[in-house]
Amino acid sequence: MRVMLVDDDHDRLKLLREALVGSGNEVVAELATSSDLLTAVNRHQPDVVLIDVDAPSRDTLESLGQIARDRPRPIVLFAANSDAETIRRAMRAGVSAYVVDGMSASRLKSVIDVAIARFHEHQALKRELEDTKTRLADRRDIDRAKGVLMQRRGLSENDAYELLRRMAMDRNLKLGDAARALLAAADLI
Amino acid sequence: MRVMLVDDDHDRLKLLREALVGSGNEVVAELATSSDLLTAVNRHQPDVVLIDVDAPSRDTLESLGQIARDRPRPIVLFAANSDAETIRRAMRAGVSAYVVDGMSASRLKSVIDVAIARFHEHQALKRELEDTKTRLADRRDIDRAKGVLMQRRGLSENDAYELLRRMAMDRNLKLGDAARALLAAADLI
Repeated sequence: MRVMLVDDDHDRLKLLREALVGSGNEVVAELATSSDLLTAVNRHQPDVVLIDVDAPSRDTLESLGQIARDRPRPIVLFAANSDAETIRRAMRAGVSAYVVDGMSASRLKSVIDVAIARFHEHQALKRELEDTKTRLADRRDIDRAKGVLMQRRGLSENDAYELLRRMAMDRNLKLGDAARALLAAADLI
Repeated sequence: MRVMLVDDDHDRLKLLREALVGSGNEVVAELATSSDLLTAVNRHQPDVVLIDVDAPSRDTLESLGQIARDRPRPIVLFAANSDAETIRRAMRAGVSAYVVDGMSASRLKSVIDVAIARFHEHQALKRELEDTKTRLADRRDIDRAKGVLMQRRGLSENDAYELLRRMAMDRNLKLGDAARALLAAADLI
């Protein structure tokens, strides 16, 4: 596993690096929490981000949230101490595994395994949600576009649909995108 | 927190019970993994299910999956050892926190906090997915019902929609349910 390691404490970082390399991982980058984590993820393309802090700050959680949004991958967060509210915020930011006071070399592999499994399960659910939202928006926009064609050109529903479908084919667009293009144009004309 | 405790090992169960009670929780039930866990959840309505095993069996994961489906609540699973595939299956079954070889009284509270935060975040995502799916199905069924009314009664789209809306109001149904009732009836007639 290609791991990006984030830790402000030099001794802790050394321990983590040894534990990671010892269990067959590669450490592709070592950073402080104040670094631009998203840029580092873009540059190093790690399989996993592993971050070790006393307690995650607001800024750190925001950086992790950016990664989860723009370059999603499993994030393991080790914290020396934590309260329920910080944990809640970290989950919402997209942390896959949140381990309080539990860094141990022997458990590192299973913690990463859990984070990866959790990440994939969560991504699958999010993808299904995005797909369903797109289908709903498509349906709504196609209905609206049909309505515009029926009203402005006096077409039947079937003919309006047929016209829209032909426009999509001619322009090599998906039907939903064709509908949105037509609606945008209709607003102008 | 009202905890339902599942463990086949009597000594381990005693340790867990003491750790739970010591950190201010109430143990509302103690069961073996072979018990009917879903029925026990129905009876005791725990806030959290905590299960401690050497490695979760297929049957155990199936029981946990039933709870996640029918009576969802945070599930904490402690396992003495585990492989990545078992972890994946446990995540899919709906386990909120999967801790390998990490039971310690001092960490119990934070593990439960993480499980609860994870559970709520996951439930929110699942609820949003269900809502979006319902809206998509409603839209599709309303369109179909309108089509049936337009075809069979020679109505315009607006009139068909108006008729459906009135039927829903008269019967105190949501529009999507009214559409499905009409479609079911149309199949018979």
